[in-house]
Amino acid sequence: MTEIASFATRGRGIADNLCARSRSAAEFLSEVRVTYMSEIRAVVYGVGAMNSIVAGMLLDKGVQIVGAIARSPQKVGQDLGELIGLGRRLGVAVSDDAAAVFEQTRPDIAVIAVNSYLTDAVEQLRICAEHGVNAVTLSEEMLYPWETSPELSGELDALAKSTGATLTGTGYQDTFWVNMVALLMGTAHRIDTVRGKASWNVDDFGPELATAQQVGRTVAEFDEWVRGAQRPPTFGRNVLDALVADTGLTVKSITTATRPDIASAAMRSEALGIDLAPGDVIGFTDIDRIETEEGPVFEFEMSGRVYGPGEGDINEWTIEGEPNLFLSNGTVPTQTTTCTQLVNRIPDVIAAPPGIVTVDKLPRLRYRPRF
Amino acid sequence: MTEIASFATRGRGIADNLCARSRSAAEFLSEVRVTYMSEIRAVVYGVGAMNSIVAGMLLDKGVQIVGAIARSPQKVGQDLGELIGLGRRLGVAVSDDAAAVFEQTRPDIAVIAVNSYLTDAVEQLRICAEHGVNAVTLSEEMLYPWETSPELSGELDALAKSTGATLTGTGYQDTFWVNMVALLMGTAHRIDTVRGKASWNVDDFGPELATAQQVGRTVAEFDEWVRGAQRPPTFGRNVLDALVADTGLTVKSITTATRPDIASAAMRSEALGIDLAPGDVIGFTDIDRIETEEGPVFEFEMSGRVYGPGEGDINEWTIEGEPNLFLSNGTVPTQTTTCTQLVNRIPDVIAAPPGIVTVDKLPRLRYRPRF
Repeated sequence: MTEIASFATRGRGIADNLCARSRSAAEFLSEVRVTYMSEIRAVVYGVGAMNSIVAGMLLDKGVQIVGAIARSPQKVGQDLGELIGLGRRLGVAVSDDAAAVFEQTRPDIAVIAVNSYLTDAVEQLRICAEHGVNAVTLSEEMLYPWETSPELSGELDALAKSTGATLTGTGYQDTFWVNMVALLMGTAHRIDTVRGKASWNVDDFGPELATAQQVGRTVAEFDEWVRGAQRPPTFGRNVLDALVADTGLTVKSITTATRPDIASAAMRSEALGIDLAPGDVIGFTDIDRIETEEGPVFEFEMSGRVYGPGEGDINEWTIEGEPNLFLSNGTVPTQTTTCTQLVNRIPDVIAAPPGIVTVDKLPRLRYRPRF
Repeated sequence: MTEIASFATRGRGIADNLCARSRSAAEFLSEVRVTYMSEIRAVVYGVGAMNSIVAGMLLDKGVQIVGAIARSPQKVGQDLGELIGLGRRLGVAVSDDAAAVFEQTRPDIAVIAVNSYLTDAVEQLRICAEHGVNAVTLSEEMLYPWETSPELSGELDALAKSTGATLTGTGYQDTFWVNMVALLMGTAHRIDTVRGKASWNVDDFGPELATAQQVGRTVAEFDEWVRGAQRPPTFGRNVLDALVADTGLTVKSITTATRPDIASAAMRSEALGIDLAPGDVIGFTDIDRIETEEGPVFEFEMSGRVYGPGEGDINEWTIEGEPNLFLSNGTVPTQTTTCTQLVNRIPDVIAAPPGIVTVDKLPRLRYRPRF
């Protein structure tokens, strides 16, 4: 970042503090910052399948990667460029000490691709917030965490506000399950039902998600797991929470039904490196449903499973009402668009006010050749 | 509108004037206004096919219609409710004196459904701007008029800013051709080409558009018309202008090719009340194309014609790049979603800053059961 931009970043903290007293000064500094921020400085937090793709995209967009954090002793100390197969050194050694990385680099943004559930991702988000570092995360619950983890969300939100950091959960669901659907809803005069149907290939997202998706279990094991109390909220629940919140309607009831997806022939899970026999669980489908006091019903059927030959990710939404409306994205490359949205949201998140800012509150995502 | 809301509306003018000196006071008044604006007061400007549907939607949303303007002597003096077939009187007499209606009613918004081209709609927009009345219009060029009518846009923009009015062109293209496509573009890492394909049924939009769309002409007449210099910019041109502007790319070249759509069997145009023979022109297809200095190409093929049996409106967009992306809305009810968006944009336009504010700059459209 140039010297002027560095001033402008410091200016942001000043601007935020000034807000209560004088908007003019705050706005002036904010404009200075936007005008001169020629290069965004990012820390890659987590160096797994997703952030390896993301790091390459960041470089393409002109983002400077100034730090990388990972827990695995096999990764710590390695050069990020070599570790992710970029074919060249980036001069960034992977560290397992997040606090030290943030203190030394003072980045504009941390790009977190570690865990799916807020309870798992909270450690990373908290350390970002403590250091006043803006963060985008693939944590699916962070898409709209207010209803499913209200206490944790409130705590992180307050912490982030106190240091001037913005925390946002994004990824595939940002556009395809929340903002594009909410936009389609905005073209309706009257909504009776909103029904979504989506699928994603478990094998695209590494072994952690494949295990969480129960790949390779027997149906009996699956049934026992479903009955257990340990299950975090479904990804679809946060999606529907965001959609309902966007309309201002009042939630009457929330239900989730789950059915296992079963292999009908021999298959292989590349993510887990195991063969699957007919009858094995290859993932599952959640059907989330929210009924509202005012009448409209929201339902989302999401299947995360190992695909057979010829299967692709779908995203289809139907609105019944006046008029009936439809949206399809054909076969969507879920993994790539998860990474692209984590990257493309960065300018919006840096510009957003401090605290947890969910994607439904950010400006409409747009394409930027470079940041 | 309640008394407090009425104060708040007056407060808006005060707030706008205060802007230059003190944002705090302006923002305070703006918040007062949003909080207490319990009922929006609208004037319906033009009482044809579209605004007859729109008026019913406005009433459903809780908007109070306080005036109606039309030129036709057959409409002037009639009660709006009876004229549009609502089956009840609204207590609103249609007037041909727009200035008098605005001075007497001082509405929050004028809903203009009169003409498609800015040069035709400018009279209505100017009178709204002169009276400080916010306006939404179906004028297609107003979707993004800066490139095709820069002088007129600049004049209207300055006038509206001087009186505190916001002027916005919306309709079907707001979501389906601009904001949903720009959102899809935002999920790309790299864009090579953006290609749209859409169609609409000329018979849905009344005789003016059917005539403008050359329905019933011979191919020779059509060719002569295409060669003529009188043709306004295509609807697609403004769409592509908005999409390219959203990316910050630099326009290198702009071309439009036009081909007639020809009846292959006997058909009937309901809008014009005429029969069409095989070989007659039933509308036409424009192919707009913008190349950019940086490389990405934007192309939009739009067909407005009389439909044969089983044909429906399509809206399909394909992005080639990293990754390839796709969007389809199946069979879209173009006419209804033109009206819904004219209505659903009203709260955004009332809340927007003064001047011409194009839809790509407004917040992401959302569904509101009532305003």
